Amino acid sequence: MATIVLYSINRTAQTTVRQCLIPYSKGASRVDSHLSVFLKTSVRRLTSLPRVIWVPKATGRTRRGAVLVAGAAAAVAGFVASATHFQRAEMASVIPKTEEDTEIAEKCKTFMSPPCTDVKVLQQRKEEMCTRMEMLIMETQAEFCRALEEVDGGKFKVDRWERKEGGGGISCVLQDGKVFEKAGVNVSVVFGNLTEEAAKQMRSRGKVLKGKDGKLPFCAMGVSSVIHPTNPHIPTVHFNYRYFEIEEGDGTKQWWFGGGTDLTPTYVNKEDGAHFHNSLKEACDKHHPQYYPDFKKWCDRYFYIPHRGETRGIGGIFFDDLDSPSQEEAFSFVRSCAQTVVPCYLPIVQKHLNDPFSPEEKDWQQVRRGRYVEFNLVYDRGVKFGLATPGSRIESILMSLPLTAKWEYMHEPPKGTLEADMLDVLRNPKEWV
Amino acid sequence: MATIVLYSINRTAQTTVRQCLIPYSKGASRVDSHLSVFLKTSVRRLTSLPRVIWVPKATGRTRRGAVLVAGAAAAVAGFVASATHFQRAEMASVIPKTEEDTEIAEKCKTFMSPPCTDVKVLQQRKEEMCTRMEMLIMETQAEFCRALEEVDGGKFKVDRWERKEGGGGISCVLQDGKVFEKAGVNVSVVFGNLTEEAAKQMRSRGKVLKGKDGKLPFCAMGVSSVIHPTNPHIPTVHFNYRYFEIEEGDGTKQWWFGGGTDLTPTYVNKEDGAHFHNSLKEACDKHHPQYYPDFKKWCDRYFYIPHRGETRGIGGIFFDDLDSPSQEEAFSFVRSCAQTVVPCYLPIVQKHLNDPFSPEEKDWQQVRRGRYVEFNLVYDRGVKFGLATPGSRIESILMSLPLTAKWEYMHEPPKGTLEADMLDVLRNPKEWV
Repeated sequence: MATIVLYSINRTAQTTVRQCLIPYSKGASRVDSHLSVFLKTSVRRLTSLPRVIWVPKATGRTRRGAVLVAGAAAAVAGFVASATHFQRAEMASVIPKTEEDTEIAEKCKTFMSPPCTDVKVLQQRKEEMCTRMEMLIMETQAEFCRALEEVDGGKFKVDRWERKEGGGGISCVLQDGKVFEKAGVNVSVVFGNLTEEAAKQMRSRGKVLKGKDGKLPFCAMGVSSVIHPTNPHIPTVHFNYRYFEIEEGDGTKQWWFGGGTDLTPTYVNKEDGAHFHNSLKEACDKHHPQYYPDFKKWCDRYFYIPHRGETRGIGGIFFDDLDSPSQEEAFSFVRSCAQTVVPCYLPIVQKHLNDPFSPEEKDWQQVRRGRYVEFNLVYDRGVKFGLATPGSRIESILMSLPLTAKWEYMHEPPKGTLEADMLDVLRNPKEWV
Repeated sequence: MATIVLYSINRTAQTTVRQCLIPYSKGASRVDSHLSVFLKTSVRRLTSLPRVIWVPKATGRTRRGAVLVAGAAAAVAGFVASATHFQRAEMASVIPKTEEDTEIAEKCKTFMSPPCTDVKVLQQRKEEMCTRMEMLIMETQAEFCRALEEVDGGKFKVDRWERKEGGGGISCVLQDGKVFEKAGVNVSVVFGNLTEEAAKQMRSRGKVLKGKDGKLPFCAMGVSSVIHPTNPHIPTVHFNYRYFEIEEGDGTKQWWFGGGTDLTPTYVNKEDGAHFHNSLKEACDKHHPQYYPDFKKWCDRYFYIPHRGETRGIGGIFFDDLDSPSQEEAFSFVRSCAQTVVPCYLPIVQKHLNDPFSPEEKDWQQVRRGRYVEFNLVYDRGVKFGLATPGSRIESILMSLPLTAKWEYMHEPPKGTLEADMLDVLRNPKEWV
């Protein structure tokens, strides 16, 4: 659930579905100062922030078109001239004309909810990365939720919410299911402005970003999920895939992808670990031979609990700032990763579905869940940032927490036990493929 | 458990009891750089840091004697000249000569464990505030633990631990008792050096502190406790009382006290709230009519969970930086507060000991405990600092967490229920006296 929170920014639960979540007419200039502080203080560049809407100057689409920035409280000359939400809706209110338009409309019907951006708008700018990524994250959410529903028998509760400052999201939660104690799959699409301070942070990555009047409009979107099963022999899984886009004053776009999938078992199961890591390696290898080894190490480093000297789980892959070799290839890699979520996890769930477990095993799971809470509340950059951002949708940020967790004083499993084996793996990350 | 963690700095559990925990011969100069960073970034000055040992230059005691600083890895000329741990022990190895000496020795026998500092050393410097405060925190720990043991029927597990860098502590935990799910009472006494950066932080308080060679030796000690009962009708209580001392280059001592006691019920009980707050007010009123109103407000501000828009509980008192009207009077006030812990809490425990409760009430308690975890892991300055300090004794820091906690997605009690009443009080702090 690392980054979902970066754009889960509305406390209002279950808001009604709007035709378009992007009220860009409300104003385009407010710079998210909190965001800039976070960017300044974070070790690496963040990857999940508010969205820019590209509106063609004339009838054609252009990368240097007028930039409309939503998510702000006051309209500002220079960015939003005369376009309004209603104008935009009007512009978009045409019936699908091409096969591709029909395809988008049809695909949207299979999602857990209408997408964050209006279907007509998506059709209008169907070749843009923002659209393609939004379609991918909506598809990933739907595919994963359906697969979990099938195995559990329960149904996801779908909450659609808006971010006052711009954008919104769709939170799907299945709680107290037969198989899953708590399963959350969240999509969000947000947009806004970066401050100059935040831009400075970009420079540390070697990229000089020049805004217009010191402001850099940007968009961010992602899908994020944490699944906590009831049975301690079924591991917890987490994944998150996200896209970030920033517009410089001269119209140049900067963009990058981030994400990862990682597993947190209660007990070591070599076969499960190998299946999980091999699935991810396969997805990576299709794109670059260094992706798996590099992103596997990155994952072990990121999901680490320093005060315990343990990793959170047995890892997987984690990457950020991915902007090469090309936007097309980077997107293709992210799509491969997203499409691997179901095949890397569901077979493990199926396999252990009927494993018997003792109260002691459940207890150990609860202690491990305590560590999960510690990682998420103390170290996860996304959660920390989300909690510190006024107006965040807290329930979407914290749906990554387990239903229940336990803290026993001085808990240390005796040597030679399966619990001690697990700890050993967490203290000394191993190779699984 | 706000500040216990500031000095719980050794992972080794259950270390053996040493005659004196203060290995000052190990070196006196290492400046705790992490500490200084924390001091720099914290909003208010911290109150719980490593300890200074005052060794008389000649045979008499003097406030301007040579300063020995322990908790460091390397000895530094100018601070530690020739004294060693063994020399100190030798100096102190005299049988009690006065009635007061006997009194200290006798009192120490009633503690949960021998005090952190060797009894003989305490006798030697019995008039110093460090000694008087250490005696007070040890007494408070013992008094509170005995009272809880009496009502629970169980026994506290006593862990004595050392901090490699200097000092140590005594952690008492009662887990899975008849009345208490988890009860922790911790004492710690630590010492070390402040960096110049940390000293700068002091300046913001209007005090210019000049060290010797840029270093400012200091000591800190405190007692800290969190009690989580099983029955949802018995509230959780937390208290913490601490003393801080810092030595300037010219021998001037700066000192201050901090602390507080606060209650976190699962259900509103006006009578309990009034008893708790009235007890604290009585303790405060003996010393200054503004103490209760000011420290009550401070407590509501400190124990606040911004992302929930709720206070953690119904408050109590909280204060820091207390260095007036005199050291004697400030200590006397802190003593009154510490002596109020048992009378403000135990009658409430006794009253609800046999209250029946439903699974739904237990469930609500678990949800509230989730919020307790959120506050402690995300906001509590002491916990944050402790987790970020290498070598911290994590189990003493996190013994403030409940045995179990719960996070339900979108949990919101229906209007008109007792659970909603509780939320209302947490969202709108009220006056109890």
